[in-house]
Amino acid sequence: MKQALHIVKIGGNIIDVPEALASFLANFASIPGFKLLVHGGGKIATSMAAELGIQSQMIEGRRVTDSESLKIVTMVYAGWINKSIVASLQALSTNAIGLAGPDGAFVVSKKRNPEPIDYGFVGDIESVNADGLTALIKNGLSPVFAPITADKKGQLLNTNADTMAQALAIALSNHFEVTLTYCFEKQGVLMDPNDDNSVISQINSANFAQLKADGIVSAGMIPKLENALKAISQGVHSVRLCHADFVSQPDKGTLIQA
Amino acid sequence: MKQALHIVKIGGNIIDVPEALASFLANFASIPGFKLLVHGGGKIATSMAAELGIQSQMIEGRRVTDSESLKIVTMVYAGWINKSIVASLQALSTNAIGLAGPDGAFVVSKKRNPEPIDYGFVGDIESVNADGLTALIKNGLSPVFAPITADKKGQLLNTNADTMAQALAIALSNHFEVTLTYCFEKQGVLMDPNDDNSVISQINSANFAQLKADGIVSAGMIPKLENALKAISQGVHSVRLCHADFVSQPDKGTLIQA
Repeated sequence: MKQALHIVKIGGNIIDVPEALASFLANFASIPGFKLLVHGGGKIATSMAAELGIQSQMIEGRRVTDSESLKIVTMVYAGWINKSIVASLQALSTNAIGLAGPDGAFVVSKKRNPEPIDYGFVGDIESVNADGLTALIKNGLSPVFAPITADKKGQLLNTNADTMAQALAIALSNHFEVTLTYCFEKQGVLMDPNDDNSVISQINSANFAQLKADGIVSAGMIPKLENALKAISQGVHSVRLCHADFVSQPDKGTLIQA
Repeated sequence: MKQALHIVKIGGNIIDVPEALASFLANFASIPGFKLLVHGGGKIATSMAAELGIQSQMIEGRRVTDSESLKIVTMVYAGWINKSIVASLQALSTNAIGLAGPDGAFVVSKKRNPEPIDYGFVGDIESVNADGLTALIKNGLSPVFAPITADKKGQLLNTNADTMAQALAIALSNHFEVTLTYCFEKQGVLMDPNDDNSVISQINSANFAQLKADGIVSAGMIPKLENALKAISQGVHSVRLCHADFVSQPDKGTLIQA
């Protein structure tokens, strides 16, 4: 039987608030067994780029990563945020190890095609070294991934943290029973967006079609749930959407399963 | 019999020059067997701090690390420089993994006593997790260390890269036959500072005393050699001082042995 592995993704809404991050990390550290964290970026990179006079260019809500921006995100995500999180987790007795894609070639990407839109130094994930990562995890280490990868030629590339978490979850499902938890601001997927207590506790492909047909699931939530169901069809045991405060409470939030 | 492990330290003179770094990494990648790299910082952190309007304060040639400077060095050393080196080494088929002290609690430090001089967020190394690192190395990974550590409470600290290389070499000597190579601008320790061909090929404690008495070893070189001999007395097999171009040629430079 495969052992359980908890993969958790946090984003800027937690990283940008020191108290929220500290509280999340304490909860994350309390998850028993094997675990892996993927963190996004937050506002620090944007504000630092602004201080250095580098203008962030956005196309359709996505940051265009020129060479100067790549340097900033690598510094901030893989340097400051990553090592701060690892040091905090170590102080909480979680044996964390901070990683980016090129480390151990754990996540290898390819520069996104510049047609039709040139996003610059952005990488789409090509492969995950699941065997190498599994050895690390079974050795008692909890990987903490920054969303920076590199291609096979050594070019660093900015990478979407949600996608990275999903790719890691799928690849590691060959070795573990993986639960992938996305932490966000809400308590879960809500029946009524104005009622935080209206969390839908379980979603599968059958009731998802119904929820979509009934217009209950919001436009922003549809791609998240579609990705979750796709991950499950590729071997991930379950995907959970929940508030960061409840990361260590498996009965909270919305659970997506086959 | 212990297997050989090559620990190499490079500094700013290589990191600051892209061509020199590329050439060094190709040579480093060609070293057969187990290897580990420790890199220093270089001028990027200083210039970035200047761009952000953070003034570097120096006391007796040492940088005073305030909280803003700590953020910059963590970003630049553990983020940009570290991941750039790892991505390049991966492209050269060396299975590198970028690390800082808190990762795996591999290098744990303690904030330096603020008396008599307050250096700020500077850490002196307290312990090395040699067993954990050995597992990684024997698994085929080549660690690449940035000179950033953390104390047990999760406080990140700026750490001297030479000292880190030495602490790693001593701790790993329980598991490997360690050669510690410091790359610098010279061909080795020179009999005549104006003659690059006057490399002293071997130094031990006996001829070091003589070289010192004869005034041949320069003032700047004495602490380096004393540290090397100290490392050897603590189990390191040999210490080598050589030019970065010759890192993969064991007969070049000055070899310090018992």
